Amino acid sequence: MDYTVLDQSADFFFYFHAAHTAHQQVVAEHLEINQPDTQWRVESSPQRGQRGLRLHASQGPLHVSYTATIEIQHHMANPALVSEVSVFDLPLEVLHYMYPSRYCQSDRLANFANAMFGHLPMGYMRAQAICDWVHHHVEFRSNSSIGTTAAVDTLVERVGVCRDFAHLMIALCRASNLPARFVSGTDYGADPALGPPDFHAYVEVYLSHRWYLFDPSGTATPMGLMRLATGRDAADVAFATIFGRVTSVQPHIQVTAHQDAANSWVLPTYTAMALSTSTTDS
Amino acid sequence: MDYTVLDQSADFFFYFHAAHTAHQQVVAEHLEINQPDTQWRVESSPQRGQRGLRLHASQGPLHVSYTATIEIQHHMANPALVSEVSVFDLPLEVLHYMYPSRYCQSDRLANFANAMFGHLPMGYMRAQAICDWVHHHVEFRSNSSIGTTAAVDTLVERVGVCRDFAHLMIALCRASNLPARFVSGTDYGADPALGPPDFHAYVEVYLSHRWYLFDPSGTATPMGLMRLATGRDAADVAFATIFGRVTSVQPHIQVTAHQDAANSWVLPTYTAMALSTSTTDS
Amino acid sequence: MDYTVLDQSADFFFYFHAAHTAHQQVVAEHLEINQPDTQWRVESSPQRGQRGLRLHASQGPLHVSYTATIEIQHHMANPALVSEVSVFDLPLEVLHYMYPSRYCQSDRLANFANAMFGHLPMGYMRAQAICDWVHHHVEFRSNSSIGTTAAVDTLVERVGVCRDFAHLMIALCRASNLPARFVSGTDYGADPALGPPDFHAYVEVYLSHRWYLFDPSGTATPMGLMRLATGRDAADVAFATIFGRVTSVQPHIQVTAHQDAANSWVLPTYTAMALSTSTTDS
Amino acid sequence: MDYTVLDQSADFFFYFHAAHTAHQQVVAEHLEINQPDTQWRVESSPQRGQRGLRLHASQGPLHVSYTATIEIQHHMANPALVSEVSVFDLPLEVLHYMYPSRYCQSDRLANFANAMFGHLPMGYMRAQAICDWVHHHVEFRSNSSIGTTAAVDTLVERVGVCRDFAHLMIALCRASNLPARFVSGTDYGADPALGPPDFHAYVEVYLSHRWYLFDPSGTATPMGLMRLATGRDAADVAFATIFGRVTSVQPHIQVTAHQDAANSWVLPTYTAMALSTSTTDS
Repeated sequence: MDYTVLDQSADFFFYFHAAHTAHQQVVAEHLEINQPDTQWRVESSPQRGQRGLRLHASQGPLHVSYTATIEIQHHMANPALVSEVSVFDLPLEVLHYMYPSRYCQSDRLANFANAMFGHLPMGYMRAQAICDWVHHHVEFRSNSSIGTTAAVDTLVERVGVCRDFAHLMIALCRASNLPARFVSGTDYGADPALGPPDFHAYVEVYLSHRWYLFDPSGTATPMGLMRLATGRDAADVAFATIFGRVTSVQPHIQVTAHQDAANSWVLPTYTAMALSTSTTDS
Repeated sequence: MDYTVLDQSADFFFYFHAAHTAHQQVVAEHLEINQPDTQWRVESSPQRGQRGLRLHASQGPLHVSYTATIEIQHHMANPALVSEVSVFDLPLEVLHYMYPSRYCQSDRLANFANAMFGHLPMGYMRAQAICDWVHHHVEFRSNSSIGTTAAVDTLVERVGVCRDFAHLMIALCRASNLPARFVSGTDYGADPALGPPDFHAYVEVYLSHRWYLFDPSGTATPMGLMRLATGRDAADVAFATIFGRVTSVQPHIQVTAHQDAANSWVLPTYTAMALSTSTTDS
Repeated sequence: MDYTVLDQSADFFFYFHAAHTAHQQVVAEHLEINQPDTQWRVESSPQRGQRGLRLHASQGPLHVSYTATIEIQHHMANPALVSEVSVFDLPLEVLHYMYPSRYCQSDRLANFANAMFGHLPMGYMRAQAICDWVHHHVEFRSNSSIGTTAAVDTLVERVGVCRDFAHLMIALCRASNLPARFVSGTDYGADPALGPPDFHAYVEVYLSHRWYLFDPSGTATPMGLMRLATGRDAADVAFATIFGRVTSVQPHIQVTAHQDAANSWVLPTYTAMALSTSTTDS
Repeated sequence: MDYTVLDQSADFFFYFHAAHTAHQQVVAEHLEINQPDTQWRVESSPQRGQRGLRLHASQGPLHVSYTATIEIQHHMANPALVSEVSVFDLPLEVLHYMYPSRYCQSDRLANFANAMFGHLPMGYMRAQAICDWVHHHVEFRSNSSIGTTAAVDTLVERVGVCRDFAHLMIALCRASNLPARFVSGTDYGADPALGPPDFHAYVEVYLSHRWYLFDPSGTATPMGLMRLATGRDAADVAFATIFGRVTSVQPHIQVTAHQDAANSWVLPTYTAMALSTSTTDS
């Protein structure tokens, strides 16, 4: 990542560290910052394992690079056996993901969600039906949305990028009484026609007391998704929040899959199984 | 209609006169205003036959009553023979009804309209399909919208009153390259369960070089609709636009169907025919 | 509170318990639920001291009543000595209150906030200036907003109720790099002309490593505000979130100030001091 | 203008002809279309003098060029003598410019307009005060808005291009009971730092029974503004409305001021006089 700080200083808050959770082990990582006397610290969110880098940079060029080797262990389940959790039994911290948020105005979608998904049998397949609906009714088009675009805009305009697909799916899930949240990550396995590897946005829905992964944009391989940060929507997990006047260039991202000598690692592939890498408290 | 003007004076602009057009004859009418020295005048819009009452009222109570006997002659056509007019052949004054307006943001609905209605055969039935879609996907509920509610809100929230149904149908028609406009009128034949007779909002779509009637809310009998004013959307034809501080009560409306001795008049009924009471220049 | 559950059952999530924090002691409380076999539980949010009541009610009438005696100890400070905390030093959990939320779209207000408040000296007085601006530029009018009204709507329309004042102040604070959050409470000391005692919404801004109270609607006595729940905006702390079909009547609320025999308690009055009842972790 | 029609044909509706009015004489003009067998026609709007080019083009490249020499005669008036027209005396066709439109939601700005401009003495200077307010509170920044950006967005975000300045001024005028409309034109005299000559959007306000010119973006020389088309807002006067799949490049525009041998023409300069080039019916 390359920035130029225009004034005397600027503050950055980054979420580009790989989250370190029970299911996502950070085997090795390396952070490099070109300004030797920059103040910085990495802070972990105890509940969600995500790690934010806070950085107070001085005027001039700022170059930050981060590399990590991570190992993801998926919990896999038969979709037919993954069920919804009744409202009464939802953990308190999960209940928060039922409320509307900046880019997921579920409070406006109750009638729509009920008409479209209210009659479906409860369970994983209902979340999958919402995911499929979003995937089939929104067109993926680069640069078709702006920073303030939210779920209702995407529902109206039917075009967006991965973040918009995620916001619309989350809003529809919440309006259907399914707790749902936003995950930022990287898009291993994305269609090369969409360009070089990039940050990605995907969705987790709370079912059978776990968070299950969904990729409504359909542009990545779900098994290849690597978690950076988790929140209610994009407002919570911006890759970079900047306080001060700064110019920037597009960050450079590279994602490679490794397989060890013993072939004991599994390369990400498409699977019909329900995938999860998070329980309530990991 | 009963108002109380709070300050020294207030200006009113009313559209409650029955429009006087080639298809809608005003057989008799009577206007009564309680303030004897009020300045007022009735003005006709030459193109559309609607008549506005402008009134400069003094402080105190203002009572206005209007009665009219009108005769409507419908042009009826076989829906299968009513066709769309190519963009190149649309009259200039009709082209205006293709543009987005305050409450009909058709510019945001191109993808949606194309996905839903773009594949249908062109003609009256495509407009009817849009009308039916709106009717079946929006719930009629009194007091469920506010003055600033527009078509995209109704598309998102799926609830509204007759004006919201009309705005959404108009926006979807325009986004489908079908010129469409808003008509204010009265709702003869409305379900008595919805309350006493009321002002009504319905839609006209330009097909086969005429404007054809549609009632997306489905609450009135289309043959019984009586035209007050015609515009791009509700912003153009508000029943009362008031300049000044005024209190008001709900206007009292009564609509009765007459049949003459010779039985030569036809009572409004439901019909499968396409109905029109307006050509481009009437 | 009186409800009627229309179907076989309905779930409620209430925030009407007085928060129990280091500054707000619950001396006594009593909860009564008329359905003897209702499943319910009260859960505390460890960080914020608020307590939610979850309740799974059966068909029929549901009556819930709650009374509490609480004692509030205010931290008071000289406004001139209360300063802003630099972004780099903000605790991680406070940083969340810098992000836009459902009803506080601070991401759209950066230019406006900077033009209006960016030149002011940093500190408590800047937050007070935002509070005053909102108070003087928005008109308080009952029933002037709806459930989906958000800060940008209030900025445009300049009218609202206490919740709208709070949302706009919060959004402007965040857009000014001041962490701000929404508190639901009761409005002891409200102008009786506004009606009987009611739920109230007020604001806390993070300054000098504490959360300081502001009442932008100006309808209550800040010293008399009693905290129910704290969140990013109204979406987080709704008095009642209901899952299921239910009818309800307006809840009945009563607030009384007590003074003990020894006169050792202080009755809420207006004060020029900065008031706080919350640190980061209380 | 250069386009490529992707399918068998496409329809275009252009507003790039210089309007031909009592105040703006088209001395000479020349239109060139590269497709020899293209169907096209130029239509005049009788009331407003604008001329639309309708064109049904075939697959392949389409090149259209238009040149015109025009002469503008300004009505000039002492601003102090230009007064507002009472609502009762507004011509019927002017009343339409009091209503909210797609990009000018004046219905939401009544409180704001009243608080800011309601106390000012009536007349030209009130319109000028609105123009100045918009000019000083919105930042001009290229590419800062999108096609769906409307006046309330600009009021919130305080950034835009000339069309956004025009929409906000129009909305505030209408909310202040001043009829206002949108004019598309060219920006002779624009700051060269803003790039090559371009299409421009400016405002007309109805005062003293004429339409007076305002340029809220302040980027052009008002005397140099040349009218293309006039409407309620940008929705009515889009430079090009295209029906069909088409690719395009930025049109090339050139504007030059001429002075004849006898020096009888006047070069556009800044003036403190109120300028008008349109009465109600010209």
